Amino acid sequence: MSRLYEDLTAPEIATEISSSSILVLPVGAVEQHGPHLPLSVDHVIAHETATAVVDECGDELDVWQLPAMSISKSNEHAWSSGTLSLSAETLMAVLRDIGRSIAPTGAKRLVLLNGHGGNTTLLATALRELRLEFGLMTFLMHPALPPAYGGSSTESELGMGIHGGLDETSVFMHLRPDQVRLDRAARQVPESLERNTHVKFGGSVSFGWLSNDFNPDGYIGDPTGATAERGKQLFEQSIAALSEAMEEVKVFDFGR
Amino acid sequence: MSRLYEDLTAPEIATEISSSSILVLPVGAVEQHGPHLPLSVDHVIAHETATAVVDECGDELDVWQLPAMSISKSNEHAWSSGTLSLSAETLMAVLRDIGRSIAPTGAKRLVLLNGHGGNTTLLATALRELRLEFGLMTFLMHPALPPAYGGSSTESELGMGIHGGLDETSVFMHLRPDQVRLDRAARQVPESLERNTHVKFGGSVSFGWLSNDFNPDGYIGDPTGATAERGKQLFEQSIAALSEAMEEVKVFDFGR
Amino acid sequence: MSRLYEDLTAPEIATEISSSSILVLPVGAVEQHGPHLPLSVDHVIAHETATAVVDECGDELDVWQLPAMSISKSNEHAWSSGTLSLSAETLMAVLRDIGRSIAPTGAKRLVLLNGHGGNTTLLATALRELRLEFGLMTFLMHPALPPAYGGSSTESELGMGIHGGLDETSVFMHLRPDQVRLDRAARQVPESLERNTHVKFGGSVSFGWLSNDFNPDGYIGDPTGATAERGKQLFEQSIAALSEAMEEVKVFDFGR
Amino acid sequence: MSRLYEDLTAPEIATEISSSSILVLPVGAVEQHGPHLPLSVDHVIAHETATAVVDECGDELDVWQLPAMSISKSNEHAWSSGTLSLSAETLMAVLRDIGRSIAPTGAKRLVLLNGHGGNTTLLATALRELRLEFGLMTFLMHPALPPAYGGSSTESELGMGIHGGLDETSVFMHLRPDQVRLDRAARQVPESLERNTHVKFGGSVSFGWLSNDFNPDGYIGDPTGATAERGKQLFEQSIAALSEAMEEVKVFDFGR
Amino acid sequence: MSRLYEDLTAPEIATEISSSSILVLPVGAVEQHGPHLPLSVDHVIAHETATAVVDECGDELDVWQLPAMSISKSNEHAWSSGTLSLSAETLMAVLRDIGRSIAPTGAKRLVLLNGHGGNTTLLATALRELRLEFGLMTFLMHPALPPAYGGSSTESELGMGIHGGLDETSVFMHLRPDQVRLDRAARQVPESLERNTHVKFGGSVSFGWLSNDFNPDGYIGDPTGATAERGKQLFEQSIAALSEAMEEVKVFDFGR
Amino acid sequence: MSRLYEDLTAPEIATEISSSSILVLPVGAVEQHGPHLPLSVDHVIAHETATAVVDECGDELDVWQLPAMSISKSNEHAWSSGTLSLSAETLMAVLRDIGRSIAPTGAKRLVLLNGHGGNTTLLATALRELRLEFGLMTFLMHPALPPAYGGSSTESELGMGIHGGLDETSVFMHLRPDQVRLDRAARQVPESLERNTHVKFGGSVSFGWLSNDFNPDGYIGDPTGATAERGKQLFEQSIAALSEAMEEVKVFDFGR
Repeated sequence: MSRLYEDLTAPEIATEISSSSILVLPVGAVEQHGPHLPLSVDHVIAHETATAVVDECGDELDVWQLPAMSISKSNEHAWSSGTLSLSAETLMAVLRDIGRSIAPTGAKRLVLLNGHGGNTTLLATALRELRLEFGLMTFLMHPALPPAYGGSSTESELGMGIHGGLDETSVFMHLRPDQVRLDRAARQVPESLERNTHVKFGGSVSFGWLSNDFNPDGYIGDPTGATAERGKQLFEQSIAALSEAMEEVKVFDFGR
Repeated sequence: MSRLYEDLTAPEIATEISSSSILVLPVGAVEQHGPHLPLSVDHVIAHETATAVVDECGDELDVWQLPAMSISKSNEHAWSSGTLSLSAETLMAVLRDIGRSIAPTGAKRLVLLNGHGGNTTLLATALRELRLEFGLMTFLMHPALPPAYGGSSTESELGMGIHGGLDETSVFMHLRPDQVRLDRAARQVPESLERNTHVKFGGSVSFGWLSNDFNPDGYIGDPTGATAERGKQLFEQSIAALSEAMEEVKVFDFGR
Repeated sequence: MSRLYEDLTAPEIATEISSSSILVLPVGAVEQHGPHLPLSVDHVIAHETATAVVDECGDELDVWQLPAMSISKSNEHAWSSGTLSLSAETLMAVLRDIGRSIAPTGAKRLVLLNGHGGNTTLLATALRELRLEFGLMTFLMHPALPPAYGGSSTESELGMGIHGGLDETSVFMHLRPDQVRLDRAARQVPESLERNTHVKFGGSVSFGWLSNDFNPDGYIGDPTGATAERGKQLFEQSIAALSEAMEEVKVFDFGR
Repeated sequence: MSRLYEDLTAPEIATEISSSSILVLPVGAVEQHGPHLPLSVDHVIAHETATAVVDECGDELDVWQLPAMSISKSNEHAWSSGTLSLSAETLMAVLRDIGRSIAPTGAKRLVLLNGHGGNTTLLATALRELRLEFGLMTFLMHPALPPAYGGSSTESELGMGIHGGLDETSVFMHLRPDQVRLDRAARQVPESLERNTHVKFGGSVSFGWLSNDFNPDGYIGDPTGATAERGKQLFEQSIAALSEAMEEVKVFDFGR
Repeated sequence: MSRLYEDLTAPEIATEISSSSILVLPVGAVEQHGPHLPLSVDHVIAHETATAVVDECGDELDVWQLPAMSISKSNEHAWSSGTLSLSAETLMAVLRDIGRSIAPTGAKRLVLLNGHGGNTTLLATALRELRLEFGLMTFLMHPALPPAYGGSSTESELGMGIHGGLDETSVFMHLRPDQVRLDRAARQVPESLERNTHVKFGGSVSFGWLSNDFNPDGYIGDPTGATAERGKQLFEQSIAALSEAMEEVKVFDFGR
Repeated sequence: MSRLYEDLTAPEIATEISSSSILVLPVGAVEQHGPHLPLSVDHVIAHETATAVVDECGDELDVWQLPAMSISKSNEHAWSSGTLSLSAETLMAVLRDIGRSIAPTGAKRLVLLNGHGGNTTLLATALRELRLEFGLMTFLMHPALPPAYGGSSTESELGMGIHGGLDETSVFMHLRPDQVRLDRAARQVPESLERNTHVKFGGSVSFGWLSNDFNPDGYIGDPTGATAERGKQLFEQSIAALSEAMEEVKVFDFGR
């Protein structure tokens, strides 16, 4: 049976969706990813991850996949033509409209499955807005956690493989083997940042950045050693971890 | 070669997209469509139509397909849980953000390919906004023209097969043969409207309506005779007509 | 007795306005109309048409005339100094505020009588917004229907007499005989558009335009043969048709 | 010659409007005015005052009359059905749009001629916004000054004839003799307010009020002695004073 | 006992704040004040005034002091770097949010104690918005009344000591004796304005101004004779007057 | 010398503030903090921390303290009367207005020093907005890092002392010894959350919460063992760490 929300008819919403259902909204992005990756990376990863997670645990946990938002907030890449970006205000408005729309279905749990690190803080803000305004229980998951949220990239990248680096490139090679041009990429790690104790990716002090603040090429990390095999492993680990997390989402009750 | 915009890398935007390119934005909807059709109808039709049109004439006319907006403005169906709807303000904001994003690519022509009649007037308004604000040449096409814009539905439906009726159901049967439950549908035509000369679908006087103004079942038309074969014919005619229209878009110059 | 809404006292609102009343909001525009017509054309036509229609059928059908909006959305003429234009957002906000204001009067039917084609799609969008938000039954009428809504201009203008052309100029000569300078006008028809099957005024593909896209003079059509006599005939036909339409508005019930 | 802005053609804007022109925007209101006066009072007074002032000094001072805003911000009367009110945000947006529209005409001086006390503080705020955003020199005049701005009503009303009182009723009797129902009105003066030194109309402490805070009848003052003769005198004094003020507007230069 | 609202615990809100409480919101500004005064002037005066008034009558009248807004709308000084200014829209939004927040406390009376003349008309507009939207009784007080609201400055300044002039400088010398550089100031009075009967500070015609419309130095008035002693006297008079006004606020009932 | 920005005069802005200056904006909150702490906690901590950090390193690093925002976004506590909260939109608007205001001063580095965890994600979003819109280098620091950003609370609280818990209460006891009522507090730890691997404070899955989702008392943690001494130690560690971080801010260059 399809677990795509949009494949239901309106009368089936009443019979299939209930307070024990989990709705998953994949949030992608269409934005520059350097010379070696297409604009679609975050869109593809969000979509494929959501599909795989729902395949894995959808029937058991009553999970339904909402249509992916392909475009979101990518203004750190607005300098690079090709990037499609919603403003912060627009993205928040879209999320509110979706929250308002799903509240009457009876579903109580909404998971934002976010493929784009540039959205993370705004989506995290939206979690509370949607909880307060529509009474939804809201969750934010990532195929790969951004550093500011506790994620890390490889040691060889000094933890700074944050956009088009080794892991993301590998995962994309696994998902779209024909679309990666590794020969066009090199190492782009802002190494001197490592000297900082506080002001760095995942440090205690966040900083505002645009992707061309670091270099003119649009990626930060070192994709040169990426392989589809590594990507496959990372992707499968991610699906396993997210499915496990989805079980916690299913019964989450604020510790009461 | 892929004609999906998002499959390009950022450097390829500069080499592949030019002032002679046409960008096509499919606009779908996820909204109730009665008991016989899933929520996805307009999303599927917009996406499939765009794909087929770009297949047909993309290489020749330098057309690029943007990622489909799956959700748009469906507030005439907000009464029916399941419907996902952006507000008028949000949809306009999304369109402005997309216009702002594509303006730097060098593309001059943007086609909104709209699968949902409920968007038509707002998208038509947006044509001018994007032309004025970003200098784009903007166009609005429909897989099937809404009555208010000169389209018509079948005589047997008295021209009122506007939502889930004979033609739309047939086209969807062609595209997703397993997803239509014709046995759940009947004839739902607000027949007395036919007596009106002015105030009717496609009449000289438009009127504000919600889909449950007509009946509680959410569709307006008579899908009972729908067939995949009829749908195939309609779909192919649509692709042919839109491809022909795309040639006019390619060289359109305001008659100068 | 006056049929101007504003001539009522507050206590009379309760006694005179009821669920069977029709409120008519004339919507004009103040915008460039070429060298032969003043900025006031659409304002004057909207106001005079509303007045004549209410004279014709107001007592019989319980119609009340709201104060005309003189200025509306004219951004296709923003390039020409003199034009006064509200933004799309502002015009929608004004309409919402008016809808909110009249909802408590008990009137259920609101007619937007629109003298300016540039407003048509936005007002058509507003019909649904006001229906949904305030429960009003809403209607959109035009003194002369724009091509995109099924209207047509003269054959001699190839159907492209859309702004300051033969018919509009004639009607204005009838209404304000001293204010037309026919000697300053010529034929301004973007003739090559006629070759198009799809992308043209009233064609299946709408396009975004500013009035100076066609020529630098600000009008589109051929007013050279305009006469007050022709205008009188057109105006009277319009009043007759709108009064007939108003009877349908009076009893409109969505075909239930 | 007409001094209505909208009677100009677009080419005449360039020849007739210059940096020495003054544009006057009458701002009316359509709102409850008690049982003795129609909703139109402020609209009529703003319009008639503007017309008379422009008649008086328009040719000499190069003054042009913009179309009156009939509806403005009347939310202190929103409790009374019949009142038509724009929100504060909408009214400010309309004013900004008008400022943006007139800036390219070359006119430098814009006078808001405000017939409705409920707008005064918002219009006064707008003076600075339009000056800053569009470089216009902006002015705010009143046919009759509200108490908070130094105006006063009659001693018999203890200075509290602020809405539908003696003076306003008299002026309206002069302008529309057939539309006043004095027999329906009585004395409605919140007399105990007089005891206050600070918190009162025109006192050092302003307070937020809705018109039904004082009494359920919607007027504040004592119109019982109103006469058209008194109204004529007040109106003529007002025209004289405003014309005199317009001469100061003409040459105003911030004391430089 | 502290009379700072923020020093209460949440449970104490229920026991200490009631419908007889008065909440006072000091509204300051951080904006250029010429070469002789720091940016803080209006912030300091608003804060010190509120503190002194609450000291004077807080216990008797059950007054609670909200945290001061240090920054408000100062766009007349936006030309001078250093000025911190909220837009009109932002300031109104902040006030609405505060109104919404305090409505549930049970307090019914909110006093805006405004130290910055540039806010006056917007705050006066907000009085009604907060009354209508949240049912609060709302009041606007000033340490020193702006001319447009009936205040006056010294005769020697021709009533035009409106920003950094004799009185304001004196009061600030009293409050922050070490922070005034009188030697840097001179007389800056736009004397020719005095010739005007209508268009002048406190005249019947308001005008939009930016502080650099008058001179490039950023103050209007003549601070040269300012003394702390004069400031002390003015400050004490102000506290006495505002405390007296607060007694009227306490029992204000719209004269019913 | 004062290091308060507002103590400068306008001409001093030009001489004292340069591209090597750092501006610090303390962001507080006024919100319920359980029965044992006043509403002011986050306001006080933000203000005192900023003051101490500027004392510590202001002269050396050319740091200037902006006036504290006392109120910010506290809608997770909106259920508890007393809480003062700006909406997400308002807070973002305030931050944009401040960014716009400081951009002309020449300062390039802006530090948001945030005392309230409920603001963190929105402020982190603002970092990019202000960088992109105004070219500022932007940083976000916390007196105590929220768990989602890598901070932790005590082991005895299972890392869930996030609001009014041991550490925050201790710090406040140090700063305002007389204002804490430890006798009113108990242990309020949602212990069963500890069983979760992913969905928990600081886990890989964020969740939307309101403070009364956990318990009706408004605090989460165990303040029972709080002491001023512990608070002093924590505060001093925080000042030391932030001062060290400020040195990194001073020379931060994106690793170029």
